[in-house]
Amino acid sequence: MEIFQITGYKNSGKTTVASALIKALKSLGVRVASLKHHGHGGAPLGMENTDSEQHLAAGAVIAGVEGDGVFQLSQDAPWDLSSMVPFYELLDVDLLMVEGFKNEHYKKAVLIRKQEDLVLLQQLTNIQAVITSIPIDEEFYSYPVFNMEQVDLFCDWLCESLIPE
Amino acid sequence: MEIFQITGYKNSGKTTVASALIKALKSLGVRVASLKHHGHGGAPLGMENTDSEQHLAAGAVIAGVEGDGVFQLSQDAPWDLSSMVPFYELLDVDLLMVEGFKNEHYKKAVLIRKQEDLVLLQQLTNIQAVITSIPIDEEFYSYPVFNMEQVDLFCDWLCESLIPE
Repeated sequence: MEIFQITGYKNSGKTTVASALIKALKSLGVRVASLKHHGHGGAPLGMENTDSEQHLAAGAVIAGVEGDGVFQLSQDAPWDLSSMVPFYELLDVDLLMVEGFKNEHYKKAVLIRKQEDLVLLQQLTNIQAVITSIPIDEEFYSYPVFNMEQVDLFCDWLCESLIPE
Repeated sequence: MEIFQITGYKNSGKTTVASALIKALKSLGVRVASLKHHGHGGAPLGMENTDSEQHLAAGAVIAGVEGDGVFQLSQDAPWDLSSMVPFYELLDVDLLMVEGFKNEHYKKAVLIRKQEDLVLLQQLTNIQAVITSIPIDEEFYSYPVFNMEQVDLFCDWLCESLIPE
């Protein structure tokens, strides 16, 4: 299973790019799974987790609940990316598209929305491409730079690099 | 990893028994994880699953989201118990306590709240004990019968049978 990250600050368009990429890869027959860090603080939106909370309160190390295609595992500590990846390896998936977790070290694209975001290009590791909403001097960088208006070009490029001929 | 089910119809007290059991096992140093079937129809209570839905709509086979100790995997089809058990096997857990999924074939306790529930004792497999709120003629059954008022006795019995001396 390949892993690829779409990273950038909040509201930089990560979900838009991830969704476009999932669509493009799917059209090529690639089985993509996704993983998103819920960055708004707290548990995934609107969740009321009564049953799991009862089990956790009783002393369960992990409380799971399943319903309507949703399988949810709760614990008292955050889940590391490294502890979640093996779950995906159990599944019949070719590529895991990770949205966020920018300080992790998998191959990644970085989204740049404004000048202050450029610092990410110094900080993050294993950058394969940049998708930018502002003009960037491409010469400075060893990886391709795509315009946010042309996400399709990025998708084509990534599909080619992820799927060997 | 051992697996044990707490089964019974809706509102028969499954969560109460499961929680008592988790507490008792924890006090003995057993690392328990739980899995509950969310039986109210639909996804786990109150969940708004916007991000996952975008990824699924784009064609992801699995959409994951993580935040605040909750790791949630969504797909277009229900999750079978047999497809969820391997996830727990990745974790450092001694026992998986399954609440519900009564037609599965793991060792189980059956909760009886009223006369009509007795049919479960004919239908379900691998029954190890009964916990009842009504009088039951114990002679008919090859497994121990506990009173719902004495859940502690059931817990003691199960702890002993799950933890080899």
